[in-house]
Amino acid sequence: MVKVGIVGATGYAGAELVRILFGHPKVALSVITSRQYAGVPFDQVFPAMKGVVDLTCEEFSMEEMCRRTDVVFTALPHKIPMEIVPRLVARDKRVIDLSADFRFRDVKRYEAFYQPHTAPSLSAAAVYGLPEVYGDVISQARVVGNPGCYPTSVLLPLVPLLKAGLIRSEGLVADAKSGVSGAGRSPSLGSLYCEVTESFKAYKVGGHRHNPEMDEVLSLVAGDPVHITFVPHLVPMSRGMLTTLYAVPKESVTGEEILECLKSFYAGRPFVRICPEGQVPSTGHVRGTNYCDVGIVFDADQRRLILISAIDNLVKGAAGQAVQNMNMMLGFDESAGLNAVPYPI
Amino acid sequence: MVKVGIVGATGYAGAELVRILFGHPKVALSVITSRQYAGVPFDQVFPAMKGVVDLTCEEFSMEEMCRRTDVVFTALPHKIPMEIVPRLVARDKRVIDLSADFRFRDVKRYEAFYQPHTAPSLSAAAVYGLPEVYGDVISQARVVGNPGCYPTSVLLPLVPLLKAGLIRSEGLVADAKSGVSGAGRSPSLGSLYCEVTESFKAYKVGGHRHNPEMDEVLSLVAGDPVHITFVPHLVPMSRGMLTTLYAVPKESVTGEEILECLKSFYAGRPFVRICPEGQVPSTGHVRGTNYCDVGIVFDADQRRLILISAIDNLVKGAAGQAVQNMNMMLGFDESAGLNAVPYPI
Amino acid sequence: MVKVGIVGATGYAGAELVRILFGHPKVALSVITSRQYAGVPFDQVFPAMKGVVDLTCEEFSMEEMCRRTDVVFTALPHKIPMEIVPRLVARDKRVIDLSADFRFRDVKRYEAFYQPHTAPSLSAAAVYGLPEVYGDVISQARVVGNPGCYPTSVLLPLVPLLKAGLIRSEGLVADAKSGVSGAGRSPSLGSLYCEVTESFKAYKVGGHRHNPEMDEVLSLVAGDPVHITFVPHLVPMSRGMLTTLYAVPKESVTGEEILECLKSFYAGRPFVRICPEGQVPSTGHVRGTNYCDVGIVFDADQRRLILISAIDNLVKGAAGQAVQNMNMMLGFDESAGLNAVPYPI
Amino acid sequence: MVKVGIVGATGYAGAELVRILFGHPKVALSVITSRQYAGVPFDQVFPAMKGVVDLTCEEFSMEEMCRRTDVVFTALPHKIPMEIVPRLVARDKRVIDLSADFRFRDVKRYEAFYQPHTAPSLSAAAVYGLPEVYGDVISQARVVGNPGCYPTSVLLPLVPLLKAGLIRSEGLVADAKSGVSGAGRSPSLGSLYCEVTESFKAYKVGGHRHNPEMDEVLSLVAGDPVHITFVPHLVPMSRGMLTTLYAVPKESVTGEEILECLKSFYAGRPFVRICPEGQVPSTGHVRGTNYCDVGIVFDADQRRLILISAIDNLVKGAAGQAVQNMNMMLGFDESAGLNAVPYPI
Repeated sequence: MVKVGIVGATGYAGAELVRILFGHPKVALSVITSRQYAGVPFDQVFPAMKGVVDLTCEEFSMEEMCRRTDVVFTALPHKIPMEIVPRLVARDKRVIDLSADFRFRDVKRYEAFYQPHTAPSLSAAAVYGLPEVYGDVISQARVVGNPGCYPTSVLLPLVPLLKAGLIRSEGLVADAKSGVSGAGRSPSLGSLYCEVTESFKAYKVGGHRHNPEMDEVLSLVAGDPVHITFVPHLVPMSRGMLTTLYAVPKESVTGEEILECLKSFYAGRPFVRICPEGQVPSTGHVRGTNYCDVGIVFDADQRRLILISAIDNLVKGAAGQAVQNMNMMLGFDESAGLNAVPYPI
Repeated sequence: MVKVGIVGATGYAGAELVRILFGHPKVALSVITSRQYAGVPFDQVFPAMKGVVDLTCEEFSMEEMCRRTDVVFTALPHKIPMEIVPRLVARDKRVIDLSADFRFRDVKRYEAFYQPHTAPSLSAAAVYGLPEVYGDVISQARVVGNPGCYPTSVLLPLVPLLKAGLIRSEGLVADAKSGVSGAGRSPSLGSLYCEVTESFKAYKVGGHRHNPEMDEVLSLVAGDPVHITFVPHLVPMSRGMLTTLYAVPKESVTGEEILECLKSFYAGRPFVRICPEGQVPSTGHVRGTNYCDVGIVFDADQRRLILISAIDNLVKGAAGQAVQNMNMMLGFDESAGLNAVPYPI
Repeated sequence: MVKVGIVGATGYAGAELVRILFGHPKVALSVITSRQYAGVPFDQVFPAMKGVVDLTCEEFSMEEMCRRTDVVFTALPHKIPMEIVPRLVARDKRVIDLSADFRFRDVKRYEAFYQPHTAPSLSAAAVYGLPEVYGDVISQARVVGNPGCYPTSVLLPLVPLLKAGLIRSEGLVADAKSGVSGAGRSPSLGSLYCEVTESFKAYKVGGHRHNPEMDEVLSLVAGDPVHITFVPHLVPMSRGMLTTLYAVPKESVTGEEILECLKSFYAGRPFVRICPEGQVPSTGHVRGTNYCDVGIVFDADQRRLILISAIDNLVKGAAGQAVQNMNMMLGFDESAGLNAVPYPI
Repeated sequence: MVKVGIVGATGYAGAELVRILFGHPKVALSVITSRQYAGVPFDQVFPAMKGVVDLTCEEFSMEEMCRRTDVVFTALPHKIPMEIVPRLVARDKRVIDLSADFRFRDVKRYEAFYQPHTAPSLSAAAVYGLPEVYGDVISQARVVGNPGCYPTSVLLPLVPLLKAGLIRSEGLVADAKSGVSGAGRSPSLGSLYCEVTESFKAYKVGGHRHNPEMDEVLSLVAGDPVHITFVPHLVPMSRGMLTTLYAVPKESVTGEEILECLKSFYAGRPFVRICPEGQVPSTGHVRGTNYCDVGIVFDADQRRLILISAIDNLVKGAAGQAVQNMNMMLGFDESAGLNAVPYPI
């Protein structure tokens, strides 16, 4: 059994990592850390786990982490990982980082939207952990920058079509809707039940940090600078993300070609499900799973393509994708630990 | 007191009409009809009204309706109103119809998306009941076709800008999100609590009948055929609608001009609130009210304009707007019966 | 117009007071204070109020409050009111306090569950603001201790029956369920959307401070010490409280007598609605209103009486009842400002 | 692999059976039937299952079912199973029935609350499928009557205490709260999203058919006729059930004895988790799992015992418990197929 550790196990993404890794058939979850809950049994923080997860949260110690693990997940606010990850790598650990710190190939772009990067060369050498796109390099990576939830939902539908040159790279729009767990587990007015329930709104319009992240990958794939117009919204639900994408197909491209392109790009990949024509995804269909469902509506009259993707923001948008990356890094089956039968509701 | 009646008072929009008209200072709600609940006291159908609304649902009778009312609201599935409304008008009643039957100036467009129209000339003579746009003709109208909820949320932000020529009429996108009450009160699998809660999806992509309705008005306003790409979504909440609009500003147009245009178009109108810069609307802020909040984000770099509108689909999107139309038809203050202080949450 | 002020206007109960008082036909809301939002326009804190409420939150100043108001509502955490209220009373203001500080006739009981009381004689002289029970003294009161939401929901069904000697005072059980707004607007882990949605739990079992409050009133009414077993629960909804009460009817008492007793006790009172036999209340039927609905099921075989009450915890359970008290203190109609037509959903 | 079939696989309990049995390591799900969806792939009815469950719903055929299965689950409205089950048993199939038809030892009691029983002797010979109580006979049973969700939540806390004689059998109260999925998947007004959200109510007070079911088992266990006062409520959530029980401890019994009794009764049983003192259960902690969490508050002063249980009504309250029964009937580990790591939220 490969020994794994989680730094930051009591946020929503961290706890989801615990859920998946504890049930994973090929790894042993050996260390979980939490600043806030150091010394507290995990099942006191998340009583659902009572009688199942018998781990206790620890204060982070580089020494202990290196001694007791082979692979480390860092589920921390950005800025902290760039301090920790280089030291883990120096001790020969494989690292999957869930923050933004190792997602950018172009460190200047990172610095324009976050802060100065203290490990720029490691960042440049890290791999962007979108397994369906960068699977070949992920398997060799020492550090994987696990994608943001919004970029995952935007890139999976667009990358194959941009690569194949079927759509124009200008005028792209991503209208994205997320559940509240994306805002994290720290108490804040905006995340209170009474402020969220029976209400729907946009937020950070024109200023969300996931925008440069998706732009970078889209630009790399398209071979030209791409800027996508991105508006995130908050849905009164805990988990789930649905993104509606608007694109202009290139001249003479048909709906069948679009569908065929997506189907063939994702052939054999277990976690991207292309909806049959006439069906569109729902976050309810991917809740708690690592799936990304993608649906297509082609408006031939108006020459407009609508793509809709649905993921669980905590699974394919965070912890599940991180484990999928680990599986590829360790040569396991891509879906190990991720293939429970979904709940019907 | 003007005597008013409601045909179809026990659907969600009909019941909302009862709420508003029963509390209206200048009218007396005299007749309410319901096929399903004929003979049943209204407060047994909606027990919230116990001790307040003392009316009993009646079977619809043209004779009774005409004898006991001056103004009639028809809140029925389309196709039925075009049978009833002409007879009410013939008896000199003012009518506000909440279905699609009298919304289209171009009867052929109606017939392409609904069914043959049996009162085409009355339809052509009816007025589209968007008070902020057609207020002058509404006050003279005998029949008002009350707008759909989606068109209301799309047209209020776009009409002033198209009229002023500040945005291009091509490439418009409306990504709209509605609460579940829009689906009505008839039991159906898709409206069950367990199918909706903690879930978000698109529906009727590329085929919603509100699309031709908004296209007609946009085309009339722009003076050219306009087709907007429209995708409706279902939000796990009962009331509320938020629409995110993507438009391309004409060359050299600035964000200030956009904001100024909207502010001056809606100056003095009580129910459209333009958000100050940097703020965006939330359906929570308009819940239970007749307001339409509109927010603007102007992306100067990408030459892209984002407009966001929020309404309560049952009030400004249905019953409230209907009463606003009635107020204008009867020469009352536009906001009579509609100006309760909103709930903070 | 009587001038009124609110100390603590930006919590959920305070904001609800703003809503009701701003729309009240007989008072002018002159001063609202908020420590956290001093200097901020109220409609920035609650954007629903934009264009309606034009007040700005102020830092509390005794001088200003006394100069510009006749009646003051204090909506603050307990302990603070007992400092402020005596000084307001000394300046001849009428005060309705929404905290626990002036709810107890027996100051020792207060001190056993809260802290030492610094205004014990004023507390003893204050009136418990349950208008349907203490209406006669409320009209003369200088200080009203507005009841807690749980006690309101427990006392309204039980007081008439205990007074009439129809039920035993031993073995009473109150199983109460509250919406999340009862926990207030301060960010806390337990009130986060993701921690509350799709979840139901009991809390503070055997230790809620509303228990001694209801015990005191029940004891006064019964003429003997009464202790009710009280378990509060948290419902995934923002507003509303439903309490299921279990009592043992005295020998030979019938269901009809119970129903008759309640009906006659509340005859002519606008805000208590006794459900007809076979119907039970729902919080949905009282949402946003000052009603308390009460339903009865009498199990003759088992000699057990079940009473169910439903209120909106922020209205009849807080701000609405406070305004009802003010109405009585000022000789207004009891329901002034509180009689909007309820929403059907 | 044991071959299993499900009659009625597209209701909520049936679909949950599909989820669990499809992922079960020791059985092969061979046949699923659905009258409404015969001929439709299961993953079209529940798109969450796309790419996972490749079964198609069939019309029920006794011949086919018997030919292709060893064990059959019947998840049907009561009355239908008593026609089908005897014929399955005659063909030597093991049957777990999720309706009420085989839950009663006393057929007369069944007939008083349902209808005449057409298989009374088989009913009397069936075993009540509460594994923690009747495990020894379940393993030998040919037909198991799977308990109702409410009885499960009531019996697990009470049975050990009644058996041990620690509480009185008179005056028991069960205040129970259920998610909406308990009402099934057939469209009905009362289960619509807009009728349920942000609302809480009691229903079927004094008339729920689960009352005689729990009374029968409590009476058998206590050795005397027991009638529990039972009030079910509807919570705005899809899954989950929390029951608050009020009991009177026998003289001199202490809280420690109560706790000890429950702990020892459930020692070694994987699915009943007794909360440590001071903690109480939440449905959120058992969501999607087969756990029943039980918490205790002992009020020594008032000599009153409060017990709180939480289950997922579709799992421990239906499909999970059915599979647990199957495991025992087939000699598998009790928790086979039921031990996934729970979700943190």
